[in-house]
Amino acid sequence: MPKIAVVQDILSANDEIARENRRRFDQAGVFVLNLMSAPGAGKTSLVLRTIAALQPELRLGVVEGDVASQVDAERVAETGVPVVQINTGGGCHLEAHALRAALEKIPLEDLDLLLIENVGNLICPAAFPLGEHLQVVIASLPEGDDKPLKYPALFAQADAVVINKIDLAPYMDFDREAFRRRVEGLNPRVTFFEISCRTGEGLAAWADWLRRRRAEQRESVRRIGGC
Amino acid sequence: MPKIAVVQDILSANDEIARENRRRFDQAGVFVLNLMSAPGAGKTSLVLRTIAALQPELRLGVVEGDVASQVDAERVAETGVPVVQINTGGGCHLEAHALRAALEKIPLEDLDLLLIENVGNLICPAAFPLGEHLQVVIASLPEGDDKPLKYPALFAQADAVVINKIDLAPYMDFDREAFRRRVEGLNPRVTFFEISCRTGEGLAAWADWLRRRRAEQRESVRRIGGC
Repeated sequence: MPKIAVVQDILSANDEIARENRRRFDQAGVFVLNLMSAPGAGKTSLVLRTIAALQPELRLGVVEGDVASQVDAERVAETGVPVVQINTGGGCHLEAHALRAALEKIPLEDLDLLLIENVGNLICPAAFPLGEHLQVVIASLPEGDDKPLKYPALFAQADAVVINKIDLAPYMDFDREAFRRRVEGLNPRVTFFEISCRTGEGLAAWADWLRRRRAEQRESVRRIGGC
Repeated sequence: MPKIAVVQDILSANDEIARENRRRFDQAGVFVLNLMSAPGAGKTSLVLRTIAALQPELRLGVVEGDVASQVDAERVAETGVPVVQINTGGGCHLEAHALRAALEKIPLEDLDLLLIENVGNLICPAAFPLGEHLQVVIASLPEGDDKPLKYPALFAQADAVVINKIDLAPYMDFDREAFRRRVEGLNPRVTFFEISCRTGEGLAAWADWLRRRRAEQRESVRRIGGC
């Protein structure tokens, strides 16, 4: 069997399970984000800041994806929010079937917002949707403004790009306008946020957007259900 | 055919070609480094600093691996050093057969040191040796000191770990001792360098190590050849 056929089989099997996951999310009335970035861009920090901004107004849950370790899940668990760890054991991205198994351990019906932290990787998570409503890519100033040129797929399909660590701007050359132009060249409809998980700058706008997008999604499910 | 068997076939085919590549390097008398890191840790900056430190004392060549774009290869080409770009077109790591093809375009016999810049990814390059003499992992302060816990394979097999961007130490919480302990827990024989490609700090020690390791490798090939 040619290699490409095997890869296609894996991708279409993933997409079928992702659609199942999506139906479960909509039935449970939970809005779901897939957070993706390079290692160390600040996914866990954004999860913690989002919990601080929206809990208890919204009831949050978290799925943590990592190659190994539970260090991120432990940090999240300290907030009291339900969290499940997926260790991929070498795998470089989450897949829909692993998420489906993790969902057995999370009280979906008791949640309003589920944050999925993918494995730190700017490449492979792009090919494996999980059933999420929104894909969010976190970039950070120290990574450099050329990343959309070098890792285009994830930026091309993101609903939002969050530029983190803007408190470091005085200490490095990161051309925010060039970065935005490069992302918009791939993805003209993307929404940008500029934040610092260290100082809290920009996080109110991020939380407002999540509230609004969640409300729009609920309204859309309600209307389709009513037809 | 079960999935794991396919994966094993790919890995063993890669390793066979990696051994061929290694024989070519040794015949040509060129010492070869595989530079691996997360996106934006500073692989290209280290390549440029290494060229500045060692050329023309040593004759350098570079292979640039990226998912897309030639921006890194263009920066390297400005130095006058021979450079070949490999675009993986979505692939998240270099493989030995892609390097073999790239070697056709580089004058190996005219080089002393070949630097291979892998795709920015802390996970998958670990499973695909290319025939290199040394594996170097570049970490950077903004990524955080927990990366060896979360991406252990690459750190466990590295010959050297280069900690870059140490000029940013005043602006972030990165526990260098904790980071080193975590790497040494996986890999007690690793060599560390602490550098800043921005300021030049620590690069003399890195260049000295390359000179020494290259000389040792040449001596070892000479002795084996003489038996």
